[in-house]
Amino acid sequence: MLCFVATDAVIARDSLSRILRRAVDRSFNRITVDGDESTSDTVIVLANGLAENAPLSSGHGQRQFARGLEAATERLARLLVSDGEGASRIVTITVRGAVSRRHALTAARSVANSLLVKTAINGQDPNWGRIMMALGKSAARVEQGKVAIAFGDEALVERGMLREGARLDRVRAIMGQPEYGITIDLGLGTGEERVRTCDLSEEYVRINAKYTT
Amino acid sequence: MLCFVATDAVIARDSLSRILRRAVDRSFNRITVDGDESTSDTVIVLANGLAENAPLSSGHGQRQFARGLEAATERLARLLVSDGEGASRIVTITVRGAVSRRHALTAARSVANSLLVKTAINGQDPNWGRIMMALGKSAARVEQGKVAIAFGDEALVERGMLREGARLDRVRAIMGQPEYGITIDLGLGTGEERVRTCDLSEEYVRINAKYTT
Repeated sequence: MLCFVATDAVIARDSLSRILRRAVDRSFNRITVDGDESTSDTVIVLANGLAENAPLSSGHGQRQFARGLEAATERLARLLVSDGEGASRIVTITVRGAVSRRHALTAARSVANSLLVKTAINGQDPNWGRIMMALGKSAARVEQGKVAIAFGDEALVERGMLREGARLDRVRAIMGQPEYGITIDLGLGTGEERVRTCDLSEEYVRINAKYTT
Repeated sequence: MLCFVATDAVIARDSLSRILRRAVDRSFNRITVDGDESTSDTVIVLANGLAENAPLSSGHGQRQFARGLEAATERLARLLVSDGEGASRIVTITVRGAVSRRHALTAARSVANSLLVKTAINGQDPNWGRIMMALGKSAARVEQGKVAIAFGDEALVERGMLREGARLDRVRAIMGQPEYGITIDLGLGTGEERVRTCDLSEEYVRINAKYTT
């Protein structure tokens, strides 16, 4: 991935660098296609100052600029997942109720990178056991009996078990959409994070087994 | 995975437990099919004492027993990989020259679980760049310019670059075998570990996208 962002704003180098790092952390560092990286993954921001604005050193102007840059990197990161090799679904994994943000991110990444979860997404299979597995194998603190899982607005798991009256047909319909969210509540604290992922398809294997350097 | 090992040896419970943990760590904890686990992965050893031997409490007898148990778990773990869903290749990833055994294991697991490496194995593609990527993204200490990589007995990479006179045709032939090894020397220390993995095929996706609970 080679990402170049250009702006005509007048902004100090160190401010721009700090804002970029934060924007990248919230966007490109919160997506996954296959858990791998490239040796050339790069994000560069260029500011030529042609806008001739007063330098963005004050709080308000910088915040506005940061929001704009975050919107741009967020959009690009989303496009990257939707363009994932062989991907047919974009799924946002939100983990809340973790003991910390760090634990939330660890849990979300484990679910987002699990091949069993990603193939279940591909097959539109509401296989919540695989999500429990991915939570359990992660280094995040998890108590099985406190976990709740919802697909879109449909609650599927409560207290670590299939919810009584869970509507699997509705969950399957949600999984048929090109984009949806899976929300996991660990029920332990206030840590929250989200990671965007895609399904793993036969097409992914075809593309990457046949590609050669 | 549910693994039951039975022996007629007379051996103290705590010795048996210790020997089992070590055997499992060297076998089942050194393999991967897709990086995922099962909520029911279990290894149990049963000793009924019918052999009526003198209790295996002394050094020599215990060591002999441990070697036997390790041979059994090693064989079972190998069978597990060869029976991996859709797997057509068994590949042993050896990492040596790491700054510690822990770093060696981290690096070997990163390579063994990389989807890009596993699809390259499936496509018989000597894509050493993907191995470098998997080393680089791992938490193990790696210096690019010191890395050497061999497929079987064929050296492919030296000092982080394609070796002059590297025989890609020979590497491709080695990758056509049902089982082979990839040896990575990080050139930094004496830490060594190995992890057994398999390729990732379209069949894996078919099996796991269509399976439902």
